[in-house]
Amino acid sequence: MFKKILIANRGEIALRVIRTCKEMGIKTVAVYSKADAESLHVKFADEAVCIGPAPSSESYLKMDRIIAAAEITNADGIHPGYGFLSENAKFSKLCEEHDIKFIGASPEMIDRMGDKANAKSTMLAAGVPCVPGSEGVIEDFEACKKTALETGYPVMLKASAGGGGKGMRAVWKEEDLKDAWDSARQESKAAFGNDDMYMEKLIEEPRHIEIQIVGDSFGKACHLSERDCSVQRRHQKLTEETPSPFMTDELRDEMGKAAVRAAEYIKYEGAGTVEFLVDKHRNFYFMEMNTRIQVEHPITEEVVDYDLIREQILVAAGVPVSGKNYYPQLHSIECRINAEDPHNGFRPAPGKITSYHAPGGHGVRIDTHVYAGYMIPPNYDSMISKLIVTAQTREEAINKMKRALDEYVIEGVKTTIPFHRQLMDHPDYVAGNYTTKFMEDFEMKS
Amino acid sequence: MFKKILIANRGEIALRVIRTCKEMGIKTVAVYSKADAESLHVKFADEAVCIGPAPSSESYLKMDRIIAAAEITNADGIHPGYGFLSENAKFSKLCEEHDIKFIGASPEMIDRMGDKANAKSTMLAAGVPCVPGSEGVIEDFEACKKTALETGYPVMLKASAGGGGKGMRAVWKEEDLKDAWDSARQESKAAFGNDDMYMEKLIEEPRHIEIQIVGDSFGKACHLSERDCSVQRRHQKLTEETPSPFMTDELRDEMGKAAVRAAEYIKYEGAGTVEFLVDKHRNFYFMEMNTRIQVEHPITEEVVDYDLIREQILVAAGVPVSGKNYYPQLHSIECRINAEDPHNGFRPAPGKITSYHAPGGHGVRIDTHVYAGYMIPPNYDSMISKLIVTAQTREEAINKMKRALDEYVIEGVKTTIPFHRQLMDHPDYVAGNYTTKFMEDFEMKS
Repeated sequence: MFKKILIANRGEIALRVIRTCKEMGIKTVAVYSKADAESLHVKFADEAVCIGPAPSSESYLKMDRIIAAAEITNADGIHPGYGFLSENAKFSKLCEEHDIKFIGASPEMIDRMGDKANAKSTMLAAGVPCVPGSEGVIEDFEACKKTALETGYPVMLKASAGGGGKGMRAVWKEEDLKDAWDSARQESKAAFGNDDMYMEKLIEEPRHIEIQIVGDSFGKACHLSERDCSVQRRHQKLTEETPSPFMTDELRDEMGKAAVRAAEYIKYEGAGTVEFLVDKHRNFYFMEMNTRIQVEHPITEEVVDYDLIREQILVAAGVPVSGKNYYPQLHSIECRINAEDPHNGFRPAPGKITSYHAPGGHGVRIDTHVYAGYMIPPNYDSMISKLIVTAQTREEAINKMKRALDEYVIEGVKTTIPFHRQLMDHPDYVAGNYTTKFMEDFEMKS
Repeated sequence: MFKKILIANRGEIALRVIRTCKEMGIKTVAVYSKADAESLHVKFADEAVCIGPAPSSESYLKMDRIIAAAEITNADGIHPGYGFLSENAKFSKLCEEHDIKFIGASPEMIDRMGDKANAKSTMLAAGVPCVPGSEGVIEDFEACKKTALETGYPVMLKASAGGGGKGMRAVWKEEDLKDAWDSARQESKAAFGNDDMYMEKLIEEPRHIEIQIVGDSFGKACHLSERDCSVQRRHQKLTEETPSPFMTDELRDEMGKAAVRAAEYIKYEGAGTVEFLVDKHRNFYFMEMNTRIQVEHPITEEVVDYDLIREQILVAAGVPVSGKNYYPQLHSIECRINAEDPHNGFRPAPGKITSYHAPGGHGVRIDTHVYAGYMIPPNYDSMISKLIVTAQTREEAINKMKRALDEYVIEGVKTTIPFHRQLMDHPDYVAGNYTTKFMEDFEMKS
């Protein structure tokens, strides 16, 4: 077992890891930038090493300094948290070379799943459904027609050089294909100087549903069911829940099996998440695999009584997984409380927290690194707290979230608490009737 | 269902009830004394009524004012919490007379279980084991010998007028009985002017283990397993846990059945607790029944995923109980954080909380009414917070409690946090090897 773990991260996730280490009797080392000297993760670690100034590139992404900090403090493991170096193959390799266990994926695994095309072909080989479409660039309109038939309508034509919706066309039937093909190419040529096109199946009413898995060093994996993360704004998740209101037992079983198949095919070691898009017909398609712990992991912990950070550490120490899968016994929702102004386009609102009181009581969990008097630095992600509630049913969980949001006092900065409070009253959210497009139509009331 | 509930209490339990009411969509009315104007239960209720000055006799025990507050605010239910009027038959009756539902036991039930002798004979009739001994005063030494034989050694001779250990003798074998009889009577005569004696079986290495029950208005009851509350100081519980480290599946089954039998025999309605003494041979004896919610109820909620306040409200509204019993799936510990100085005989330490930060994260629950800037009034119970942790095993729960206690910041007043931190390291506590005598030998390290 590890004797001392360095946490190569900051904020709530650094604190999260420190807490589990303490409970396991493992010493901890925090690293921090000058902007984070007053953060709780620094106060609660057994040792703390300053690794540079505020910009991440000068501290939390500075691999040599982090490795040096681990060597100086004699840490035998490094937990990378999420973001920063958590999916950096070079850093994983560097740890290996310095004989420090990286509590995450191997360099090979990160490389393999980090490259989109590579990941997709691996998943197809493992028998995991991926979004069908053309293999690379479509040669001409004849090929386009053929691919569309094979893929099945509706399809999406996309400019290879595309971005921001330019050169994209949704096509619902063959008779519209020619016009779409011509106009999309024209638009792409004008925008990017290139009219290469590829095709993907159009996912109708897509939901982002992911499966948590844990794999061990013996090639065995289990899944811990799903999280629905469809409520997103510009691909940033805002709130997550499990079980998904869209889930059925059959679909969970199929998606769980696919995720375990994926993990075992690549001999995945550690905690990971297989992200899927699920369409309105409950077809699911591999999107990407995250080879790290995720922000939203607590909701899974709450409904299956499982400490995922503990499991990461155990697996990294060579302990096998139990082999059984875990199914939600309760309903859990997480709201990401960000220092942002929801009435002003979610503009970041760093500053000093003048007053702070967290909700408590039955079924309420708070993961945060902030406190009264804490100065939120402008340099990092704006998430300042995760509010997680758990109850017997989805309806009870929503009601619990409302009362917890109502109790949450954070003064001095704007936060997304009012957004979440309105979300919990939104008829489509309450009905569980939301897709990744939900936020496009959401408007804050004043 | 209730539309509006008045909470005839203060502090954390008032807040606890308000939280569940909010989650159930029931409006709430707080009552408060002048000393409690700044308490969170006042801030978080929908309405609040000041019912008098600080002394409880002038406010929280003032029945007419509380009834008046309920009538003014149109509350259709009163939740009494624990302490104060929660086991007051007259108040329960008064509510009845004013057509306000008392969310607790009926006047008859409170009377029946509130009187010790009455409760014992009821329990014996229900077939619940009680501490054996003499029926009332022992006539003479011959009767004493006979009773001792029937009761079975060891026995305890007790002065009827006794108190403070005076006129008490433990007797382990018949040959010592005469001396004990004579000296105890002599001592009692000298101390109380009365040498009436009665006898009870001596409970060896007693543990305080209680069974949570819920009964409905249809005469049906279920149990939610046990709580071990043996760690007490002068009959004040300091910390509780479930499951009890002393429990076996067989004993739980027997005690659970006895508690359900007791509840159904008296047609008990609501949440209640049957307290037992358990000796080292795992014989258990009825001690008393609490016809109200208890301070330590959250540990039960955590291990069986159940909201006991919600259940109280449902049962009071006429909803039947499910009929199944609940068994602990996890291990939960509660530490009562009191504003007392554990290094100075647990002397109460009211005053202003200058800085406050509660622990959080996986498996941590806080029930408290205090916050930074809160002035703890000297008029009431010194409990300011309940820290509850829950984990897969007892060992993990203890480790979680340690890290949570280490994180808990309460400045400005002395608290029992250092006591609990030392307790969690005490070899006998860690081994689960403790009885109600545990605190007699406990010494705080400086």
